[in-house]
Amino acid sequence: MKTYLEMTTRELMAEKAALEQQFEEIKTRKLKLDMSRGKPSFAQLELSDEMMDVLDSRSYFNDETGTDCRNYGVLAGIPEAKRLMGAMSEVAPDDMIIFGNSSLNIMFNTVSRSYTHGVCGSTPWCRLDKPVKFLCPVPGYDRHFRITEFFGIEMIPIPMTETGPEMDLVEKFVSEDPMVKGIWCVPKYSNPQGYSYSDETVRRFAALKPAAEDFRIYWDNAYSIHHLYEDPEKQDVILELLSECRKAGNPDLVFKFISTSKVTFPGSGLAALAASKRNLEDIERYMAVQTIGHDKMNQLRHVRFFGNLANMQEHMQRHAEILRPKFEALWEIFDRELAGLEIGEWTKPRGGYFLSFDSMDGCAKAIVAKCAEAGVKLTGAGATFPYGIDPRDRNIRIAPSYPELKELIRAAEVFVLSVKLVSAEKILSTR
Amino acid sequence: MKTYLEMTTRELMAEKAALEQQFEEIKTRKLKLDMSRGKPSFAQLELSDEMMDVLDSRSYFNDETGTDCRNYGVLAGIPEAKRLMGAMSEVAPDDMIIFGNSSLNIMFNTVSRSYTHGVCGSTPWCRLDKPVKFLCPVPGYDRHFRITEFFGIEMIPIPMTETGPEMDLVEKFVSEDPMVKGIWCVPKYSNPQGYSYSDETVRRFAALKPAAEDFRIYWDNAYSIHHLYEDPEKQDVILELLSECRKAGNPDLVFKFISTSKVTFPGSGLAALAASKRNLEDIERYMAVQTIGHDKMNQLRHVRFFGNLANMQEHMQRHAEILRPKFEALWEIFDRELAGLEIGEWTKPRGGYFLSFDSMDGCAKAIVAKCAEAGVKLTGAGATFPYGIDPRDRNIRIAPSYPELKELIRAAEVFVLSVKLVSAEKILSTR
Repeated sequence: MKTYLEMTTRELMAEKAALEQQFEEIKTRKLKLDMSRGKPSFAQLELSDEMMDVLDSRSYFNDETGTDCRNYGVLAGIPEAKRLMGAMSEVAPDDMIIFGNSSLNIMFNTVSRSYTHGVCGSTPWCRLDKPVKFLCPVPGYDRHFRITEFFGIEMIPIPMTETGPEMDLVEKFVSEDPMVKGIWCVPKYSNPQGYSYSDETVRRFAALKPAAEDFRIYWDNAYSIHHLYEDPEKQDVILELLSECRKAGNPDLVFKFISTSKVTFPGSGLAALAASKRNLEDIERYMAVQTIGHDKMNQLRHVRFFGNLANMQEHMQRHAEILRPKFEALWEIFDRELAGLEIGEWTKPRGGYFLSFDSMDGCAKAIVAKCAEAGVKLTGAGATFPYGIDPRDRNIRIAPSYPELKELIRAAEVFVLSVKLVSAEKILSTR
Repeated sequence: MKTYLEMTTRELMAEKAALEQQFEEIKTRKLKLDMSRGKPSFAQLELSDEMMDVLDSRSYFNDETGTDCRNYGVLAGIPEAKRLMGAMSEVAPDDMIIFGNSSLNIMFNTVSRSYTHGVCGSTPWCRLDKPVKFLCPVPGYDRHFRITEFFGIEMIPIPMTETGPEMDLVEKFVSEDPMVKGIWCVPKYSNPQGYSYSDETVRRFAALKPAAEDFRIYWDNAYSIHHLYEDPEKQDVILELLSECRKAGNPDLVFKFISTSKVTFPGSGLAALAASKRNLEDIERYMAVQTIGHDKMNQLRHVRFFGNLANMQEHMQRHAEILRPKFEALWEIFDRELAGLEIGEWTKPRGGYFLSFDSMDGCAKAIVAKCAEAGVKLTGAGATFPYGIDPRDRNIRIAPSYPELKELIRAAEVFVLSVKLVSAEKILSTR
């Protein structure tokens, strides 16, 4: 089998003509498919429907300390919710604050708070003469980058590897530049590649010696229990960063974010933050002005639905049973249609919500546009980079969760066809 | 009957001795009562327990447009929630954004957003050379003042009258000083006095000609449907400010805040903001970075529980039946024990959660301390003023909602006794 580059111009033109015909045929199907966002599917949502039964008018609404969850109060979350979310985040209940329904909102607030009020007494970022900088492992999560962009924070791309961000670069920037105040990390089943940070990477994070006292690691552990396989051998495990930071004498270095958005209901889950005592106290001073408290009834609902982490993990296996065939279908199609052509590479994560596709340089935008032409919506090309600019225009995030399996297969067929077509055009245009 | 001031020193000393004896007796009761915060009572919470029944695993979770409320999306709220909260706020559904569980949080975000990103394109407040100023009708709501204090905003007290803030002063500050960017208002059954703004006051607000383009009226209509009486003749009505602003050609002048915290469950209700299209678009640009969406299941739960505003108003009558006897019990005790002594004045609102008590000058702190000594907790004296400083040390906010009626009566007895004792001591100390 020849790669596209090895084909003669005549061969490649014939291939392109065939692809174009297929594409025209597919367009007549008037598809309307969405692989753009990491949204759970209908079948996944149904898994948590019974959570709606755990509280009814006959329920006892007190938390375990006797606080009536219907009323005002309890700023940092009810104890049993701290315990459950703490277990999910591998920290002690006291290391945790329970917030509202969105970890993105906690991250936004964290940046906003640092901007207006500083971090544990440091100068508020809005009062600094020079712009604050954040390190952004790339490809990464577009919504992270939008937060920092929104606050005028300069974003420095750091290449991702299979073991995490390039730590030599991270260490250099963090230790040398006092304007570097943060780094966005999705340490497990990273968005979009699905890579998990190695033990060495986590230990190097914990051992960072920042030039800035208000530097923090923004550790978005969004997929902490979101495995695709039940077999523990096939599950990624990462070191727990807060305890590593404590061991390294840097307890204040990390903000850990977590949520049940992809465990129960997106938008109606629990979100939480874990950090050192000093960080939590700083955050609670702010929260005490911002709100009287978050939704404790929803905390109670989650706690009573799951009881403990083991049940939550079992619940995640039911998600995995729905998600796994979708990932595997994609790989099957990509392997069958694209392997050996040298026009693209894709990741094969063992958990999370995404896989990452790298096309030939300069093809990603065209592939996304081509898919759209045939009714398949993908995350915008470039979205995985700060400012939406992928310098090599090659990375595409693929989100297989939302469509039903049959639809996903149709969408994947459009995708591989688009990749081939755009690649052939690209190669021909340079001959 | 003599007032305390009219009593001879001998008479007043005898009175004081008798009061002290009563006070010692009361202390032996080891009371533990709380009239400090506007928290609904247990009986009030029970009124909404059946809201927990409206969604269960057999429910249909789509909103009226077919959006699955369990999943991500719908930044500004589901249409039926906008309609319900719009009706509560007397605005059109399109004038409204539904947020999370706390209107305080919306207000905080509004100040924070203005501080970091400005208002509809104006200079962010953190970039201004001079400090931003807010007008603060006094006495007012402590949590409002804490937000502005937290952002270093200079607070200018504006005396309250029975028809609203002194509008001559408001107009003068707003039209002359471009650093005045906002005013905190609780226009109906105000916190703490229970006053409602007159039509003239509302019209003068709508007709303001601010020196600052980013001046906004922070209209916290927290008690819009929180009447104590069923008879419409005994209910306060205020003009709707957004439409008055539109009539006056100032559509962008107001942010209206509202919540169901004191309708259903505090902490698990819905909060919303109403404003002009231009303001809402500005806010949504921010929200789109901050979150993927708020808790739509809770929106659905509220909508299905109430159906419409009429049912919500009927529900509020059940709250009133619990609250009204508490207010009336206080008035009965105050009238019986304090009327004619000229040592205090109190308001008699027809709705809301508070009444305001003005002692003789210089006595409020001592009265609150005295009550605490006997086990009755009140809102800290001074809390109703910016920076916690009541220049005449006389205002005390009384929150009758939380204790059961019998407890409230005991607390009120401690209160009137403390008022008499502190007043007698005060007068004697000046002789």
